[in-house]
Amino acid sequence: MYVVSVADVLYGYVSKNTEITINGWIRTKRNSKAKISFLDLYDGSCLASLQIIANHNLHNYSNEISRVTSGCSVTIIGTIIESLGTKQHVEVIAKNITILGWIENPSTYPITAKHHTMQYLREVSHLRPRTNIIGIISRVRDTLSHAIHKFMNKHKFIWIPTPIITSSDTEGIGKMFCVSTEKTKKNINCSKNEEKIKKYCPYDFFGKEAFLTVSGQLNAEAYACALSKVYTFGPTFRAEYSNTNRHLAEFWMVEPEAAFVNLNEIIILAESFLKNVIKTILEKCSDDLKYIANHIDSDIISRLENFINTSFIHIEYTEAINLLKKSHKKFKNSIYWGSDLFSEHEKYLSEKYFNAPVVIKNYPKKIKAFYMRLNKDNKTVASMDILVPGIGEIIGGSQREERLSNLDERLRENNLTQENYWWYRDLRRYGTVPHSGFGLGLERLILYITGVKNIRDVIPFPRSTKNINF
Amino acid sequence: MYVVSVADVLYGYVSKNTEITINGWIRTKRNSKAKISFLDLYDGSCLASLQIIANHNLHNYSNEISRVTSGCSVTIIGTIIESLGTKQHVEVIAKNITILGWIENPSTYPITAKHHTMQYLREVSHLRPRTNIIGIISRVRDTLSHAIHKFMNKHKFIWIPTPIITSSDTEGIGKMFCVSTEKTKKNINCSKNEEKIKKYCPYDFFGKEAFLTVSGQLNAEAYACALSKVYTFGPTFRAEYSNTNRHLAEFWMVEPEAAFVNLNEIIILAESFLKNVIKTILEKCSDDLKYIANHIDSDIISRLENFINTSFIHIEYTEAINLLKKSHKKFKNSIYWGSDLFSEHEKYLSEKYFNAPVVIKNYPKKIKAFYMRLNKDNKTVASMDILVPGIGEIIGGSQREERLSNLDERLRENNLTQENYWWYRDLRRYGTVPHSGFGLGLERLILYITGVKNIRDVIPFPRSTKNINF
Repeated sequence: MYVVSVADVLYGYVSKNTEITINGWIRTKRNSKAKISFLDLYDGSCLASLQIIANHNLHNYSNEISRVTSGCSVTIIGTIIESLGTKQHVEVIAKNITILGWIENPSTYPITAKHHTMQYLREVSHLRPRTNIIGIISRVRDTLSHAIHKFMNKHKFIWIPTPIITSSDTEGIGKMFCVSTEKTKKNINCSKNEEKIKKYCPYDFFGKEAFLTVSGQLNAEAYACALSKVYTFGPTFRAEYSNTNRHLAEFWMVEPEAAFVNLNEIIILAESFLKNVIKTILEKCSDDLKYIANHIDSDIISRLENFINTSFIHIEYTEAINLLKKSHKKFKNSIYWGSDLFSEHEKYLSEKYFNAPVVIKNYPKKIKAFYMRLNKDNKTVASMDILVPGIGEIIGGSQREERLSNLDERLRENNLTQENYWWYRDLRRYGTVPHSGFGLGLERLILYITGVKNIRDVIPFPRSTKNINF
Repeated sequence: MYVVSVADVLYGYVSKNTEITINGWIRTKRNSKAKISFLDLYDGSCLASLQIIANHNLHNYSNEISRVTSGCSVTIIGTIIESLGTKQHVEVIAKNITILGWIENPSTYPITAKHHTMQYLREVSHLRPRTNIIGIISRVRDTLSHAIHKFMNKHKFIWIPTPIITSSDTEGIGKMFCVSTEKTKKNINCSKNEEKIKKYCPYDFFGKEAFLTVSGQLNAEAYACALSKVYTFGPTFRAEYSNTNRHLAEFWMVEPEAAFVNLNEIIILAESFLKNVIKTILEKCSDDLKYIANHIDSDIISRLENFINTSFIHIEYTEAINLLKKSHKKFKNSIYWGSDLFSEHEKYLSEKYFNAPVVIKNYPKKIKAFYMRLNKDNKTVASMDILVPGIGEIIGGSQREERLSNLDERLRENNLTQENYWWYRDLRRYGTVPHSGFGLGLERLILYITGVKNIRDVIPFPRSTKNINF
């Protein structure tokens, strides 16, 4: 006898009139007058649930099956039959139903069949995967992650696990978590007091200050300067106190890095990458997307289809500033050549002005990281941000500064020491090559794909300030 | 004109007599008497390098090409021709060679073409991917990771990113890194002083003690109890002070978790999983394995082939103890029913006695974690370890305790509080199901596959006590 999943039955991988064993949880139960119960069974294998017909002549009908509530776990032996109802093609007529797990006090079960707000569900993050919406997000996230690995593999990028615990600060912007094992009262890490660090660090696990990485890029560059094309796909960390619906303290990034590739080529790769993975979601998650269209965001499918069929707009930073000035809109953050672009500006450009994904290129060096390649104008660097409507920045990337003297100049300008970057400098001293890369925030892409509004709903157990439950 | 990789040319994806552009680094250079230079070019796309013929009539032959040393980066325009030599089928006759990056002071370049010890290479972890052996390990690791994702995907496991920063201790064994942002002199984390924690934690980023995860299992269980089959694939951490060649402070784990699956079924999955991914390595990394067979471990290929063709030995813990007693060998750690199995015991069983992968099942509850399912004998738990010759334990797993009262009893026995595990207990209060899972240490599997002896050589930037460079 087959042990099968709900998807196996509903998608026709098992033929009608087959006797099967199937496990899962009850989504809802409905009793007919004719002493028949209809149980909707789900097991996470797909969005839809499978209707189980439980006749009153089952031996445990009155003392068990009739008491089943939403959330109970069961094993069912039964036969797949053509459905008489209109909601589904097939259903299962049960020969035996074993209750594996009951719901302790059903009236207080946190996940009933009724609608719950996303905010409420976050408080029961351990149970929320039992809901339709978190099930959908989980399947989309899984499909997306596989599509990412597949795209990179097809394009001959080698996956590199860059270190999570690090002694260097890629972005040079701080906001890092400290890592320590020292169990004394003296806080040896994260201290601004240089004397204290010198005194106690030797006794800590790593013998020096240790942080959680904000990006695997610098390490990935070392591998790109040997294997040509590499990528990272792993967790990264920012100790950001801002409590917005777009920020997490712990999130996943994809960071390809390619030798012999310039800024324009990496932009082409990024565009083709985004379109490819979204195309995969449209193909493989159509039921999940239909549910989203019906319940959350009616435009979702046409928006994703538009995305893969529209060419990205490419503009220079200087042009972006001019467009923003000409808009005569009142922005909270003032706009001038040299100013950073904030969320309000990005929204205006990608949502109002172009209503399309926009690539902004060649930002002023003063607002960008030290590793970006200086352009001939001596004022801008070969950088790019990709903005998408509704989300804002989804990808940031650049051509890297491969010329040692320019890199040293940029380190100096940023008050960073050559000593701390000795190995990164080595990559420029020995067989240096032009190379480029970008970083994609995975959760932001999932927000775009699912239409979900809060980033804490697209990662199973979100981490942010004051939030480390589960 | 095509921009192609070394693999494209050597594996025949581009036909002979095609004019190509190719980028890479020089492995070695050899001058013939006839004023021709032979450059061996590599780019990480495969193990082999491509021979480039540089004739003295190239415009920069005497002032540049003749000065090229190992490690220089170049762009070559040339034509693929049939090779006159015996080492390769094809080679490229250069029309133009541009030197992109020189080696600063070639006599002190850390990665010359000569042989280096693995220990020395660890000191230049940023440059070691330029060597054959680290290139091989990188490609094997990449192929293995994709094979793992593919296996899980084929078996309908959904990939779940479980949190890295956590407030709970899965194994209940300590050895965790603390995470903090607090920049004062007071160490609020990792303190044994409860008063101190209460006083200062509210000001830290998460408002309570935070650690780096040792396993994603408990979180994965929450998802398995909703989506049936899930897996994690991510970094995990142990603050182990032991400086062995089998331990890392930061390593990658694969942790599948499946609902409605018992101990024997999860062992079958683990065996089929290991064989499947090793089969993929044999198929896809044959050149890399041949190099290993020639230079590091001559038995590697036959050992892997044996592995996929041999059934794992299954024995009970009690039987393992009896075999060890009967061996009359002097072990450092004494053996009695109830004692843990140490590396020396595992070696004896898998290497001497069986000379095959061994699954040991049903360990005494006292030496195993609280979450493992109590067997009917009330003394053992439904646990399993898989040992492989040469490596020792590579997989550890168990059926989980799904019965609330038993779980509570085990928490009590381990001095763990119900409060700290409230959400984990909820999984047993609401629709509990039998479920099982295991954890695979990725780096240990790579050791087994590559025959490399030290675990620090199979992860790009290894982390261990006093070791956080790069």
